[in-house]
Amino acid sequence: MGLTIGVDIGGTKIAAGLVDEAGTILDTCQVATPPSPEGVIEAIADAIKAVGEGTSAEAVGIGAAGYVDDKRATVLFAPNIAWRHEALKDKIEQRVSLSVVVENDANAAAWGEYRFGAGTGHDDVVVITLGTGLGGGIIIGGRLHRGRFGVAGEFGHLRVVPDGLLCGCGSQGCWEQYASGRALVRYARQRATATPEAAKVLLAEGDGTPEGIEGRHVSSAARQGDPVAIDSFRELARWAGAGLADLASLFDPSAFIVGGGVSDEGDLVLDPIRKSFRRWLVGSRYRPHAQVLAARLGGRAGLVGAADLARQG
Amino acid sequence: MGLTIGVDIGGTKIAAGLVDEAGTILDTCQVATPPSPEGVIEAIADAIKAVGEGTSAEAVGIGAAGYVDDKRATVLFAPNIAWRHEALKDKIEQRVSLSVVVENDANAAAWGEYRFGAGTGHDDVVVITLGTGLGGGIIIGGRLHRGRFGVAGEFGHLRVVPDGLLCGCGSQGCWEQYASGRALVRYARQRATATPEAAKVLLAEGDGTPEGIEGRHVSSAARQGDPVAIDSFRELARWAGAGLADLASLFDPSAFIVGGGVSDEGDLVLDPIRKSFRRWLVGSRYRPHAQVLAARLGGRAGLVGAADLARQG
Amino acid sequence: MGLTIGVDIGGTKIAAGLVDEAGTILDTCQVATPPSPEGVIEAIADAIKAVGEGTSAEAVGIGAAGYVDDKRATVLFAPNIAWRHEALKDKIEQRVSLSVVVENDANAAAWGEYRFGAGTGHDDVVVITLGTGLGGGIIIGGRLHRGRFGVAGEFGHLRVVPDGLLCGCGSQGCWEQYASGRALVRYARQRATATPEAAKVLLAEGDGTPEGIEGRHVSSAARQGDPVAIDSFRELARWAGAGLADLASLFDPSAFIVGGGVSDEGDLVLDPIRKSFRRWLVGSRYRPHAQVLAARLGGRAGLVGAADLARQG
Amino acid sequence: MGLTIGVDIGGTKIAAGLVDEAGTILDTCQVATPPSPEGVIEAIADAIKAVGEGTSAEAVGIGAAGYVDDKRATVLFAPNIAWRHEALKDKIEQRVSLSVVVENDANAAAWGEYRFGAGTGHDDVVVITLGTGLGGGIIIGGRLHRGRFGVAGEFGHLRVVPDGLLCGCGSQGCWEQYASGRALVRYARQRATATPEAAKVLLAEGDGTPEGIEGRHVSSAARQGDPVAIDSFRELARWAGAGLADLASLFDPSAFIVGGGVSDEGDLVLDPIRKSFRRWLVGSRYRPHAQVLAARLGGRAGLVGAADLARQG
Repeated sequence: MGLTIGVDIGGTKIAAGLVDEAGTILDTCQVATPPSPEGVIEAIADAIKAVGEGTSAEAVGIGAAGYVDDKRATVLFAPNIAWRHEALKDKIEQRVSLSVVVENDANAAAWGEYRFGAGTGHDDVVVITLGTGLGGGIIIGGRLHRGRFGVAGEFGHLRVVPDGLLCGCGSQGCWEQYASGRALVRYARQRATATPEAAKVLLAEGDGTPEGIEGRHVSSAARQGDPVAIDSFRELARWAGAGLADLASLFDPSAFIVGGGVSDEGDLVLDPIRKSFRRWLVGSRYRPHAQVLAARLGGRAGLVGAADLARQG
Repeated sequence: MGLTIGVDIGGTKIAAGLVDEAGTILDTCQVATPPSPEGVIEAIADAIKAVGEGTSAEAVGIGAAGYVDDKRATVLFAPNIAWRHEALKDKIEQRVSLSVVVENDANAAAWGEYRFGAGTGHDDVVVITLGTGLGGGIIIGGRLHRGRFGVAGEFGHLRVVPDGLLCGCGSQGCWEQYASGRALVRYARQRATATPEAAKVLLAEGDGTPEGIEGRHVSSAARQGDPVAIDSFRELARWAGAGLADLASLFDPSAFIVGGGVSDEGDLVLDPIRKSFRRWLVGSRYRPHAQVLAARLGGRAGLVGAADLARQG
Repeated sequence: MGLTIGVDIGGTKIAAGLVDEAGTILDTCQVATPPSPEGVIEAIADAIKAVGEGTSAEAVGIGAAGYVDDKRATVLFAPNIAWRHEALKDKIEQRVSLSVVVENDANAAAWGEYRFGAGTGHDDVVVITLGTGLGGGIIIGGRLHRGRFGVAGEFGHLRVVPDGLLCGCGSQGCWEQYASGRALVRYARQRATATPEAAKVLLAEGDGTPEGIEGRHVSSAARQGDPVAIDSFRELARWAGAGLADLASLFDPSAFIVGGGVSDEGDLVLDPIRKSFRRWLVGSRYRPHAQVLAARLGGRAGLVGAADLARQG
Repeated sequence: MGLTIGVDIGGTKIAAGLVDEAGTILDTCQVATPPSPEGVIEAIADAIKAVGEGTSAEAVGIGAAGYVDDKRATVLFAPNIAWRHEALKDKIEQRVSLSVVVENDANAAAWGEYRFGAGTGHDDVVVITLGTGLGGGIIIGGRLHRGRFGVAGEFGHLRVVPDGLLCGCGSQGCWEQYASGRALVRYARQRATATPEAAKVLLAEGDGTPEGIEGRHVSSAARQGDPVAIDSFRELARWAGAGLADLASLFDPSAFIVGGGVSDEGDLVLDPIRKSFRRWLVGSRYRPHAQVLAARLGGRAGLVGAADLARQG
């Protein structure tokens, strides 16, 4: 099978792309995400047609946030769109006359990085995506690990602090409350409130108040050497690395890939993550260590990965 | 391949068994574990010969505590025997003229339960063993998940409490410090110290002092309704169930199997584990739930599992 | 000095009372709390006049939420009213021609319980108030301990879980997030979500949904034996008792008094608090134990205490 | 009253000193601590006679580790000497014909710092002593706060991590497990194990192994800029400062004094403690901040404080 189509459903926009076997995107189409659940269905179908018509594309892979069943057909639960047991595969297939597979979006992005990005040359890879929240995917023996019910790899909800921070999922102490873009902003605001005199650059990046600090301000201030911004990245890295050490105890991959917006900062955040990983890796003197790599595909990983998973039938 | 031999290396005794394809043990041999590392090698070889000679057994599976490399040949590190990069496969093969595979003992036990015990009918199973410590194994798609370097499934060292209890591994807050036979005894002693009047039955089971309480006393007292003993089991179950919920987020198996001495108490401990599991399972309303099953093979799981893994080449 | 006036400023109403030396309220006046900060000043003055005019009352004590300075004159910070460095004493004295002292409301309530409630006969008492949040007050050697800057006894913000729940104060893991009326409701909702079949009575008390559960429903369901409601009270008691054990290590009082709406349930909540207190009290075998008593004055404690503190000049 | 005698009972030596009203030690005597409880009594009496005979000294203050009753007469429990309900005051008075008061040793040291050291000019002071463990004392309104039963100020056993590290007291998560000389050594050893290449100076100070690292090595390496040693001090400071923030919420003193061997490093450890204190101080924008001062009397504080407390009758 040659060309396939990948779809990435985001909170603000839906992107479809025509992708070849090497993971190259040949054509793309973006539309704003409609407010109604049914509107989203139509928008997905339209975007697929826009890039697929007149091409030899035979299959579509759709990456969707939430729980996707093990048949890769139904969205059991989506956090952002009011889908519950939504038969997404059937509905799209009726509209586009192509075979469709639905994948969890973080799994699709992990697969993209494994096939065409930082995971090349590895067969056992764990990908974590530090975006607004924390997602991830697992490749074992060159295959995506979906789990028995399709909902494996929900790393963000690993409980890392008993009785810890409330999470949108209803639980407490979830990893994504401590290692994610949202956590980074919280660290920066808390520290800028407590020690404003040490956060001058950081505060100047925003509107001068702790509440006005956003993620991009922390990045920019850290690059300028602002101690509070740097310390905020370190705190995030402390939790990210400790969690990777846990995943090493469980999965034992040859490499971890760290993606998402936070990882755009490169070694500014990767190095402290590696340090914390080594610090907490159990038995570190007696075992080979997994590498901790930066993702390479950026925001394309999900679309490219979904397209490739469609190819695999 | 018909008959194979399984070996289980314990701290006090080494057991070898002749096992058929149905997991039935046809013959066994037990010897005391010698004090010297080389003595252990000889004892293993002797035990294998004792059950294997004159039979059609062609292969041997050895379950050993510690890290075993991905070639299933070398013990990288053993916690109880002074083995570091010990070429166990080669040394035994030289002595017994049978092909040998070495497996982590918890992996072997998990495999045994999967093939011949509580895991029958499942393809995606996570086994945890609540013994003195906490071990485990992972079966994905009907295959044992060893990890890239052979050291996957070290559940006991998942960090469940940041800055928590010291662990023998050098880290802190490891799951096995909160969910294991040793933890159970600690819970019981702490509670019996704080509220001795509520622990009369429990104290009477031992020598009358909190320090004299052992695991079997907690079990016996719990069966008699001692509130402190029951509360100690509940505390263990609280941590065990919360950890299983974490593993469900990561692995998404169809079943968990709980083995080890603690699980001998059956529903006394399994029911509170199930309750805690449901309490902490993320997204529990929107996903199928894995079953939580009691192990069935007891202490035989490791030997039977090791024998069967040898069969698989 | 005979009669004095006590004032209790609440979020919804302001109450003033004429109180005699025995702590008896002879007359009261309640008005709704106005929305504007200046309106609150006028309302306080009006309420004081309503109960004080034509009487021999010579002094006024006002209990206010927030930080009150060590001169008992200025509210440094109020959480609910937009007061920052508000010269409350001066403003009220200008309006009512009586001498005024301002006290932290939890301190006033603690003093009320010490003088006329459960603290009678003790000289060293720590009071905690489990209301919506958690407040408290300290009596040492028969005197209210205000601290050097007037802000002692902020028990609710003791950090009991590092990296724990966010608190309105900007910190994390504050005791009041784990032991308060708000915490009780959170416990009940979480548990009713996870195990609705065990929470039938509790859910029926509210509107049938976990989100509809309020504090009074938990109380009512617990009295009917609902296991989830009882477990929610136990969880609250676990944290309350552990915190009292900490306070015993620091202050070593002869008695703790537990007040606030949660304590209205009496031994349903006091007994598990006592049990948890003993469980966590350090050195419990080698030291006298403080008593843990239920408050007696209910919602009157703050008003009566403020009036009495005015008497003391 | 002019001259008094102070006694400091340590694990390895007993020191007595003749002290004047200005806190100056005029004469001292040291003897090794005998192994038997009765031997300790005799040694104390001998040391008192050695410095007191032929002088005008009229009273003796003895600082003893453990719980001392509110009559300042009986040691209820000593952690290091096998004393249980030991009538120390009576036994010494029978031997030396001087009036004796017994004080908790940390209280005595706190009093010494308050009267003659860093606390001069303050009336509300909290002292913490970061030695092998963590002790402390409280001065409120110029008086030592002993508590109703004599056992107030046991700061070291404040629970700062639920389910945290085991403590010698039988509880878990006690502050002294995270902020003390012993904790500092643990931090350094853990970090030197995980990242030996970053701890070259630190390892060279000891015997080259993580296990050989002692407190003095961490201090020396930190002064030479070793990153692991500096990070170990920071970790200690993080916990020390957060605990002081808790104590500020409770006691609201005008100053904290930090003593003990760890504080000998001065601003190397005091500055990060101050930073962490501000970071965690609740309501820090709306309240005056207590100062965080280094102790000045070093190891003399206990003896001088005990002598002065004897003076106060």
